[in-house]
Amino acid sequence: MSINKDFNYRLIFRFFGVLLLVETFALLSAALVALLYKEYDGYYFLITAGISFLMGIAGVLAGRGAIPMLDRREGSLIVTFIWIVFSLFGLLPFWISGSIPSFTDAFFETISGFTTTGASILNNIEELSHSMLFWRSLTHWIGGLGIIVISLALLPVFGVSGAQLFAAESAGPTKDKIHPKINETAKRLFLIYIILTISESILLRLGGMSWFDAICHSFGTVATGGFSTKQASVGYWESPYIQYIIAIFMLLAGVNFSLYYFGFKNKFRKVFQDEELKYYLITLFSFTLIVMVSLCDFSTPISFEHLEKAWRDAFFNVTAVMTTTGFATADYMYWKTFTWVLLLIAMIIGASAGSTSGAIKMIRIVIVVKYCYYELKKLLHPSAVVPVRYNGRLVNEDVITKILAFVMLYLITIAFGIFILALSGMPFQESIGGLITCLGGVGPGLGTVGPAGNFSAIPDFSKWFLSFMMLLGRLELFTVLVLFTPAFWRK
Amino acid sequence: MSINKDFNYRLIFRFFGVLLLVETFALLSAALVALLYKEYDGYYFLITAGISFLMGIAGVLAGRGAIPMLDRREGSLIVTFIWIVFSLFGLLPFWISGSIPSFTDAFFETISGFTTTGASILNNIEELSHSMLFWRSLTHWIGGLGIIVISLALLPVFGVSGAQLFAAESAGPTKDKIHPKINETAKRLFLIYIILTISESILLRLGGMSWFDAICHSFGTVATGGFSTKQASVGYWESPYIQYIIAIFMLLAGVNFSLYYFGFKNKFRKVFQDEELKYYLITLFSFTLIVMVSLCDFSTPISFEHLEKAWRDAFFNVTAVMTTTGFATADYMYWKTFTWVLLLIAMIIGASAGSTSGAIKMIRIVIVVKYCYYELKKLLHPSAVVPVRYNGRLVNEDVITKILAFVMLYLITIAFGIFILALSGMPFQESIGGLITCLGGVGPGLGTVGPAGNFSAIPDFSKWFLSFMMLLGRLELFTVLVLFTPAFWRK
Repeated sequence: MSINKDFNYRLIFRFFGVLLLVETFALLSAALVALLYKEYDGYYFLITAGISFLMGIAGVLAGRGAIPMLDRREGSLIVTFIWIVFSLFGLLPFWISGSIPSFTDAFFETISGFTTTGASILNNIEELSHSMLFWRSLTHWIGGLGIIVISLALLPVFGVSGAQLFAAESAGPTKDKIHPKINETAKRLFLIYIILTISESILLRLGGMSWFDAICHSFGTVATGGFSTKQASVGYWESPYIQYIIAIFMLLAGVNFSLYYFGFKNKFRKVFQDEELKYYLITLFSFTLIVMVSLCDFSTPISFEHLEKAWRDAFFNVTAVMTTTGFATADYMYWKTFTWVLLLIAMIIGASAGSTSGAIKMIRIVIVVKYCYYELKKLLHPSAVVPVRYNGRLVNEDVITKILAFVMLYLITIAFGIFILALSGMPFQESIGGLITCLGGVGPGLGTVGPAGNFSAIPDFSKWFLSFMMLLGRLELFTVLVLFTPAFWRK
Repeated sequence: MSINKDFNYRLIFRFFGVLLLVETFALLSAALVALLYKEYDGYYFLITAGISFLMGIAGVLAGRGAIPMLDRREGSLIVTFIWIVFSLFGLLPFWISGSIPSFTDAFFETISGFTTTGASILNNIEELSHSMLFWRSLTHWIGGLGIIVISLALLPVFGVSGAQLFAAESAGPTKDKIHPKINETAKRLFLIYIILTISESILLRLGGMSWFDAICHSFGTVATGGFSTKQASVGYWESPYIQYIIAIFMLLAGVNFSLYYFGFKNKFRKVFQDEELKYYLITLFSFTLIVMVSLCDFSTPISFEHLEKAWRDAFFNVTAVMTTTGFATADYMYWKTFTWVLLLIAMIIGASAGSTSGAIKMIRIVIVVKYCYYELKKLLHPSAVVPVRYNGRLVNEDVITKILAFVMLYLITIAFGIFILALSGMPFQESIGGLITCLGGVGPGLGTVGPAGNFSAIPDFSKWFLSFMMLLGRLELFTVLVLFTPAFWRK
């Protein structure tokens, strides 16, 4: 099969060129951190920045005079390969410095960063230099920003995302209406993203964290990534204040960013009436309560301290997995078994569309549950037409169809993925936990890949497969899977 | 909420009355077996038959002069409660004889029989008398026949089932067209069911089984139940002939029974062109091959004997779980972990619609996969209309909608059920395996509830919950779940 000659290669080159220049800039900021801490690792960032800069310039030059028109196929291709190209350049500092000696591990760690997953292969995080840790957290922040801009500003132009369709006051699914707004929308989202990051950094600094740790953890939080600068994750800081701040910002990062925009415009009614937000909060707090009760020891009189600790552990770790961040303050492998099931379900659900979180996302769950309930009702009254409503409006048949196919594909991917992981030699529990956590972009799984463990000991093949799963989940399946259909490459 | 006064109670009573008389007849046949083997247990069957007879007569009398009209709600109510009422009477011989001293256990064992699941709480099957074992296997046979008649002859009248819709030459979904054919259809299905049972019994007898064991295992096979007369299940017989016969009849029991009818009418083309049959066989043999390879030890030269044994173990046990029968000739807990994942997937898929098998069933999987693939294609060509075709014909939108809702509900039930089982105190692996196997009507799960274990040691609450899951799965969710909607009880 020959590759379609009609692809707008010039524009694709230009895109990659520009984006590599952005990565160059990010790499230079890591070099700056190295300079600040007087670390030799700075040279590796400068070398990588140099390579990235040259390739970026080459791309821009190769793309001169490109016609600024992209079709859906080119959109899918670019979005998928941005993550791969970014990871291939981004892993260089880890790899050439020897911080992560294995190429496979370095790729896993970097794509886990850019996809805001937070699954790690590091056995001793504190061994890494400040600049390496900064770069590791920065990959989250870049990836999170990228997905927000892509899903809320870019993808609607290609008609790919459902998120924009539901946000009240959206410009609607037609091409011409949104197009002129892309820049403006992207700017606003960037601003919200920055405000969240800065606010959290300041609040964490006030709680006694160093600026370095505060900034790195803020990167990991607003991107719902989950890389920490400590092996014990957020559990390293025993301060309840710090844990609550991070938990609250994880929760905030799981909200559709469009809602912040409405909030800033004083359209609070739209925010409070948003169904996804409602069910996101209901689910999150129900799960928290169930876990909290399971953590209480009712055989002794319960003190306020115990209750607060149980509440905090439950709230932090449920929020961490449901928002697909993956920070941890406790090892839930020591909790009751049914809490694992609950956490796995939370990992599959995810937070809101239009946020940095991964997985299926609450809006789709809401639509699917409504749809199933109406089908039950139709059993009694077959002639009755019971349309699915969301935020008070009828949901278009096409949108429902797309959502059902997505959820179905997501669940098929889980089953298939667990099989592949088990086939590659991972144990049963690790295959289940590892697949669900990587596909959902969470971080910790079960057993040896749980909150107290990491992915270093799994087979190389499993690492590559899970890297692919992270990408697949991050880009909501379709964008990547469509590249594997023959129709994509046919003229 | 008061119960709707409009239910046609007289007809409901009459239905239950007639069906209890059928159960009386079945109980008497078990008493006959007791007579044959001169077992005291015969008295318990006579007592139960007496109670069942009196209640049956009472039901018929209470239902005199009933108007022979049922609506959907009454249909759901009757079908659900038939299984519960049959189990409540059917457990009496086990319970009052002390063969199964616990009421919970007796109910679990009996509903596991009638739903053709085959999950057992017995620690020493061989301890039971011949009549008790016969009754145990007979519950499978009755349950299997019941589901065939209900799904292929009765349910289409209520417009509930999708099976008939797809069978070539079906009378179509309209009420008036099928109605006059119910009796005739039911008779034919009964004949096919009898022929399969008798053929298998004779073939097993020829292989050296006693008539008793041959008949009991044939009951368990054609109903895709899985109760054996031996603790070691079919593994008790080392004869490859016996194992192959049972495997082949399990495979046959997993085929849509309408296809046998076409076969008898020499319409082989319809049989060979049936898509569900095609994908059922492809999946079954692919899974068998993968498992077979995993069972081969490639470190030594492979002899024909080893190859045959690997093939037989793979073929038997994959067929056992995929057809949701649940017989075993090997303990797959000693196989490689990834085979468990494959077997769990097979348990979720199930065999064909219109067979005695449980779970989702291949036809729905085929439609869902096609649907997802077309959605992917639509991503490239949004304006293109790509309708789902099945057996060369367009599939109605309503049917697709129903199938998608079913599969989604099935998967939601799995997640929810695993959580409940873990909450009730079952370990992680046992919760997953136990839920999937009971909801799908298979039998063996994972770990202590695996092929070498049983459900005796799980908490009582888990037993009741799993009994409900067996019923829910057997009646394809909707029939039972609709009873839990407020709309069902509203006027």
